[in-house]
Amino acid sequence: MRSVVLLSGGMDSTLTAAIAAAESDAVAAIHFNYRHRTERRELKAFNDVCDFYEINQRLIVDAEVIRQIGGSSLTDEAIPVTKADLHSNIVPSSYVPFRNGTFLAIATGWAEVISAANIYIGAVEEDSSGYPDCRTVFFEAFEKALQLGTKPETHISIKTPLISMKKSEIVKRSLELGAPLERTWSCYQSEDIACGECDSCALRLRGFAQANAQDPLPYRVRPTYE
Amino acid sequence: MRSVVLLSGGMDSTLTAAIAAAESDAVAAIHFNYRHRTERRELKAFNDVCDFYEINQRLIVDAEVIRQIGGSSLTDEAIPVTKADLHSNIVPSSYVPFRNGTFLAIATGWAEVISAANIYIGAVEEDSSGYPDCRTVFFEAFEKALQLGTKPETHISIKTPLISMKKSEIVKRSLELGAPLERTWSCYQSEDIACGECDSCALRLRGFAQANAQDPLPYRVRPTYE
Repeated sequence: MRSVVLLSGGMDSTLTAAIAAAESDAVAAIHFNYRHRTERRELKAFNDVCDFYEINQRLIVDAEVIRQIGGSSLTDEAIPVTKADLHSNIVPSSYVPFRNGTFLAIATGWAEVISAANIYIGAVEEDSSGYPDCRTVFFEAFEKALQLGTKPETHISIKTPLISMKKSEIVKRSLELGAPLERTWSCYQSEDIACGECDSCALRLRGFAQANAQDPLPYRVRPTYE
Repeated sequence: MRSVVLLSGGMDSTLTAAIAAAESDAVAAIHFNYRHRTERRELKAFNDVCDFYEINQRLIVDAEVIRQIGGSSLTDEAIPVTKADLHSNIVPSSYVPFRNGTFLAIATGWAEVISAANIYIGAVEEDSSGYPDCRTVFFEAFEKALQLGTKPETHISIKTPLISMKKSEIVKRSLELGAPLERTWSCYQSEDIACGECDSCALRLRGFAQANAQDPLPYRVRPTYE
């Protein structure tokens, strides 16, 4: 049974690839290049992680449309990256409108063509930044839509194995499974040394701190978390 | 109230634009260029129709991914275009895997950014070629998914005003509304003179015949329909 995994090259999608590899006969990986700030670094991480798991079937999608649409600090350099506020309920500026919907729709088309039975996505609800398209209710609704919008003989499940993990559990599970965290990239702000201050860095560093583990990546600033 | 219309440049989406224009304060149009056989001709039709309805907010999306994914005669020239068989229940070779899902997901992101309340899509279920992503059950399921995958304050409806029309009704309604059918393009096979034989031409010509009307476009072959 073949599975497709959405692999950005970050820590969450890398653990998701590890789980998909353990649960599937073959894994194919899809990466979305939407020419955001840190795309080159993420693409390297994607290929490094694919190499590690010997994933040969790779699809790199030019998702320039995400930048055309705009509306996010991740794709529009005129919108500042907000400093992390892990206690706020406001959707942060890095939210890309309906990104997971777009990515899953494209992955669905590919999965249908290559006869994959599952699409793995490393979304995290519990500990997330408040993105609406990272919630179980959304994925369940999307799975129903894809069942109805594909051929009668096509049956694709959406798998979200990280959905209720905290970042610290992701770190622990990654270490248990030997996932190559040193090959991953999470920072939204820079490509050489992680900034340590954006939402994504803050969540990652807090996860490592709570797992009592050391992040192998270098950081410009390393805030202290409990 | 602003609406987004998916406008390929064909007859169905042009009537949909006419209806959206009548029902909205402002219309924005999105066109997907997936570099298929007849893209240049369709893009001209898109712009000609936008000009007619004075739609200035236009988004042309490079949806090269549709071609990368393949699996359809519409985007893969190695897959032959099947001759029309309007009586078969088999999904035809021109089916592009989950195309409407992908297009609607992208349109949702744009609609969220520009604060549009509706997305109009000219899908036809009753008289369609058997595409699974042209059915009301799919659009209803997708609307639920988009409600859950966008910001809490975002409320976008999917409008399918043509969904239960026969092609002959589309022709009649277009003529009633004065929609510029002479600016549209439907043929999947050629860009200069419509082939008259592909699924899309066959459906169009049969629609005109059943409406007792004359298609203003030239055809290489004009089969007789009752």
